[in-house]
Amino acid sequence: MAKVNENFLKLPGSYLFSTVGKKVREYENANPEKEVIRLGIGDVTLPLPQAVIKAMHKAVDEMAVQETFRGYAPDLGYEFLRSAIAEHDFKKRGVDIAEDEIFISDGAKSDSANIQEIFAADSKIAVCDPVYPVYVDSNVMSGRTGEYNPNTGRWSNVIYMPCTAENNFAPELPAETPDLIYLCFPNNPTGSALTRQQLQRWVDYANEKKAVIIFDAAYEAYISEPEIPHSIFECADARTCAIELRSFSKNAGFTGTRLAYTVVPKELLLDGTMLNSLWARRHGTKFNGAPYIIQRAGEAVYSEEGQQQVKEMVGYYMENAKIIYNGLKSLGYTVSGGVNSPYIWLKTPQSMTSWEFFDYLLEKANVVGTPGSGFGPSGEGYFRLTAFGSKENTVKAVERIRKLG
Amino acid sequence: MAKVNENFLKLPGSYLFSTVGKKVREYENANPEKEVIRLGIGDVTLPLPQAVIKAMHKAVDEMAVQETFRGYAPDLGYEFLRSAIAEHDFKKRGVDIAEDEIFISDGAKSDSANIQEIFAADSKIAVCDPVYPVYVDSNVMSGRTGEYNPNTGRWSNVIYMPCTAENNFAPELPAETPDLIYLCFPNNPTGSALTRQQLQRWVDYANEKKAVIIFDAAYEAYISEPEIPHSIFECADARTCAIELRSFSKNAGFTGTRLAYTVVPKELLLDGTMLNSLWARRHGTKFNGAPYIIQRAGEAVYSEEGQQQVKEMVGYYMENAKIIYNGLKSLGYTVSGGVNSPYIWLKTPQSMTSWEFFDYLLEKANVVGTPGSGFGPSGEGYFRLTAFGSKENTVKAVERIRKLG
Repeated sequence: MAKVNENFLKLPGSYLFSTVGKKVREYENANPEKEVIRLGIGDVTLPLPQAVIKAMHKAVDEMAVQETFRGYAPDLGYEFLRSAIAEHDFKKRGVDIAEDEIFISDGAKSDSANIQEIFAADSKIAVCDPVYPVYVDSNVMSGRTGEYNPNTGRWSNVIYMPCTAENNFAPELPAETPDLIYLCFPNNPTGSALTRQQLQRWVDYANEKKAVIIFDAAYEAYISEPEIPHSIFECADARTCAIELRSFSKNAGFTGTRLAYTVVPKELLLDGTMLNSLWARRHGTKFNGAPYIIQRAGEAVYSEEGQQQVKEMVGYYMENAKIIYNGLKSLGYTVSGGVNSPYIWLKTPQSMTSWEFFDYLLEKANVVGTPGSGFGPSGEGYFRLTAFGSKENTVKAVERIRKLG
Repeated sequence: MAKVNENFLKLPGSYLFSTVGKKVREYENANPEKEVIRLGIGDVTLPLPQAVIKAMHKAVDEMAVQETFRGYAPDLGYEFLRSAIAEHDFKKRGVDIAEDEIFISDGAKSDSANIQEIFAADSKIAVCDPVYPVYVDSNVMSGRTGEYNPNTGRWSNVIYMPCTAENNFAPELPAETPDLIYLCFPNNPTGSALTRQQLQRWVDYANEKKAVIIFDAAYEAYISEPEIPHSIFECADARTCAIELRSFSKNAGFTGTRLAYTVVPKELLLDGTMLNSLWARRHGTKFNGAPYIIQRAGEAVYSEEGQQQVKEMVGYYMENAKIIYNGLKSLGYTVSGGVNSPYIWLKTPQSMTSWEFFDYLLEKANVVGTPGSGFGPSGEGYFRLTAFGSKENTVKAVERIRKLG
């Protein structure tokens, strides 16, 4: 008799952004005359860069002709894309990453959910609190997290590293030793960043404890300060303890185009086994590559024209970040983030819970944000707004919040 | 201290098609003057249908303009694609599948590897032997298969259902009761098909034993005989015991374009839990949708123009299948498949092992096929050729084999 994976049944409620989406749809259906502004889910709104559009038209035409048609892609991804990544994202920053340490995928969400598979079932994970839900939920699904306590909002077998105003949203080294450490910097959801020196402390700690850091650098394009590292591999000795996840979603607007990559250095060994080989095996067995057209789109991001256009796009969103940050600050809100990140993290006013503030903002200002508590218990009383709207909507949203008084 | 998932270390050697690819590359590097014909991996060679090309250009243009730009797709996939699937792949065959029973994905390889996640860790799987390696390997990685015996080529905790000339490559109901039954018909690699009546027997068996059938119908477009079902849901009561995997790779040539879908009926319950909800949760947590452009490409497959072009493409490959089938038969080979499937399955001559014949064919005829033993122990002494080459190459390959004498 077939049985279900009972770990799935432990998951409380549904995925955060699905719940947010459902609430917004219900509100819009009930109030069709209202114009709702979405600054909730981290989804971009600007069209794709022209360099990317051109590259995709060209690739589509190649797929129309037998001589240039492409079937299955190489397991790791096309060499033209991996070499562009190695050159632009790493070599230009003084970091050596080999092409066969780069694995092209369909998104950092998939990678961050799948990476746990190559580790032992009894691995103990450490996560920031608040945290991007996928890190925890993917470990729940594979049975690593123990039991959920609905009162604390925490799993019994997870090490939580609170990131609050008290530690300036930078986690402390945990008291209990973890096997896997998920770090996302610039951070989703708090918008905070770690300096090179701060990140080096984590690398040294992981090497000492023989732990592995899963470093999610999906927001690196938003870094504006020179002391913030774009890659964990800018730190000494990171090649023996870290895996890095990167994405084209937030720099080049690929949220609906789907492209990402993971770096697994060949020096990263556990008990003599190369994690690079395990990830290659996983990739080759359970995935069949990103579409050729989309890999060409990714390559175009690294062209001179593409780099210029991506820079302008990121600049546009960072202008929005400033508008939200300064606007809310001037209204007396306690805000952080927004400097090296497209996320603004604010304290809810009048001791509202995160979901109370979500409903309040949706109903009174028709603005959608994301409840901080959806990212973990230490997010309670906080709220995330994103800079990914249009400038016009961003200005309007701040104006509407101003009118709430 | 972090540890690896030891189940990965149990996997013998590397993934079949990677090994084939490596051998061919090595041969080509050593013999650059030889023109190698690939009839090995099931990769298509014809360019994408014009209807698909047009739809992709249009979608690329939409991504270039703010008003029509698309970010994250809905979790299950775009409604325009799911409704086209429900209408054309099911309703037209008298099968009712609701749009929210259809989950769009990036490929049937991913789906067939990931689907095991929603089942209990101690689920016992049954597979045909020979079999598409991903079904077994994905279960090895999650620890369900026991130990590998290199002498028998079998895992201790897997139920194997031999498909050989004796049973006309149709599996018998297993003696031991499985929890999950993987069936792929039209079959990869043997090219055999099950009649509606034969498949109904499996559906009745699964319902009786409360087992779940994972039905891989990736090759349904190649069915030429009316008694062969295109979907398992053409069988009575399949909605309470079956999940179906479908792909755009082999009908519309999407191997490098990446699109597929999975059907999980809402009546499929295990101990009161809807598998549809579990798969939705998996999809929403660990995947972020297929690219918008590719989903539009999929939609175009169902347009009148698209359907006509796909039919021509399939016809072209089936003509190749006939050339291989008839050609080898006339040379005295024992061949099957090729009638409802793009695969031709042949007995190796002179008691060669599958890999011996692979090397022989590669070196003497410069033709690449796939060793039957790579698909499981009962595939030993067999060899798979595919109809996905060009007609010219297919004719040439048969001619070269003829000259081997």
